[in-house]
Amino acid sequence: MDDPVDASSSRKIPAGWVSSRPRAERARQLADALRHQIITGRFADGVLPDERGLGSRFGASRNAVREALALLRQEGLITRRRGVGTTVVLPKYGHGLDRLAGLAETLTGYGTVTNEVRLAETVAELPAAIAERLAVPAGSGGVHLERLRWLDGLPLSLDSSYLTADAGRGVLAGDLAGRDVFTLIEETTGCLLGRAEVAIHAVTADPDTAELLRIPAGAAVFALERLTRLSDGRPVDVESIRIRADRMALHAVLHRGGQPW
Amino acid sequence: MDDPVDASSSRKIPAGWVSSRPRAERARQLADALRHQIITGRFADGVLPDERGLGSRFGASRNAVREALALLRQEGLITRRRGVGTTVVLPKYGHGLDRLAGLAETLTGYGTVTNEVRLAETVAELPAAIAERLAVPAGSGGVHLERLRWLDGLPLSLDSSYLTADAGRGVLAGDLAGRDVFTLIEETTGCLLGRAEVAIHAVTADPDTAELLRIPAGAAVFALERLTRLSDGRPVDVESIRIRADRMALHAVLHRGGQPW
Repeated sequence: MDDPVDASSSRKIPAGWVSSRPRAERARQLADALRHQIITGRFADGVLPDERGLGSRFGASRNAVREALALLRQEGLITRRRGVGTTVVLPKYGHGLDRLAGLAETLTGYGTVTNEVRLAETVAELPAAIAERLAVPAGSGGVHLERLRWLDGLPLSLDSSYLTADAGRGVLAGDLAGRDVFTLIEETTGCLLGRAEVAIHAVTADPDTAELLRIPAGAAVFALERLTRLSDGRPVDVESIRIRADRMALHAVLHRGGQPW
Repeated sequence: MDDPVDASSSRKIPAGWVSSRPRAERARQLADALRHQIITGRFADGVLPDERGLGSRFGASRNAVREALALLRQEGLITRRRGVGTTVVLPKYGHGLDRLAGLAETLTGYGTVTNEVRLAETVAELPAAIAERLAVPAGSGGVHLERLRWLDGLPLSLDSSYLTADAGRGVLAGDLAGRDVFTLIEETTGCLLGRAEVAIHAVTADPDTAELLRIPAGAAVFALERLTRLSDGRPVDVESIRIRADRMALHAVLHRGGQPW
């Protein structure tokens, strides 16, 4: 591993003398710029210019372009085929962090979310750590759901939920294959949801998750931990969600003054 | 790859008959619960109970515990050493998505953020895609910064910024090694920042980024694209940020009604 001071001073050496680092950096920066253009729909027909065209568009060498495209291909964002060129695999869907919404609500207009219900059952005793987060006594029962969520034939996320017995009972009787759990909770409890605390992690997919989400093991996925409360503040739903990071980005608008909560 | 319908129906088969899937799922769920306890500081001395202790705590088999710990070790969250046991590598720092803040501001109280300035220069011509995002005419000049950001000897993120010439000029003269760019922009322009639009991606680290951040190539990192505006709405700063996902989580509080923006 380079000493950081060496790395920092290396930029004073003429470019031709330096081995791979500057080109790798250039490729990374180019990949960032290209990713942004892809995600914002700049290549409306899904076809990228050829290497020469991209090079002149970004003022980059052909090698840097090639390395940048390799990075984006590794992320699952583009494919490259001889004779066809470089094409965008699929658009990335944006999941807003500005309000609490289920996946089907979020993706309204993009397609139909369907859920493969892998598990939907009452549990006699919630795991102790879950009971604590749900603020119910140790040993309380509840409901456990696991759903693989598909958008138009593509698995997007794997959601594991523990619900309190109160909220879960009605949800179990609802249309778990076709609906968001959030709307089912609101309908069956007659209470609106209030807020949720979300922690967002990025991890590499273990083989089991990868197989379910149909991505290579070791691909990056979002791991969301979400605790959702009714409008009276009572927690009802603890979720662990794995989201395909090649197909979803999370969006937020942050204000310098902060929000009044 | 399993057909999803098969996967769904497999839970009707007695557990002993099923090969690896249920145990892998149990391990994943256990890893989720453990990760939450680690991150919320439940193991205050940084030492986890032994496998037997964890098994009885979570009602899980020894094998599931072992697999869960392997997943968390792969994430860089824990180490396991014979004779020492399982220890938390370091706490994960939380970066709130509730307000726009620089890293040093966010981590006040955790330690001192220092920045290895790898690049700080005026550029005669901003890349076309950057000029467009900054809403300046094609061919405009600006400032390019790249900083590796350290917290107490640990590299946390690699930030590449393009600033408008106006905002960048003063920032270049500021204390780039010790300060957040946000506070430098506010001081040197005399304008407060307003809001930023952030897109959060999860990607695997390319070898160049991995070497700089001192993580294994292929580890999961956050890739943030952030466009920051002055309070009058004028964009001043486009950033691409790679954040070590083994050391940082992003936190948000979401409201069902949404925020009034």
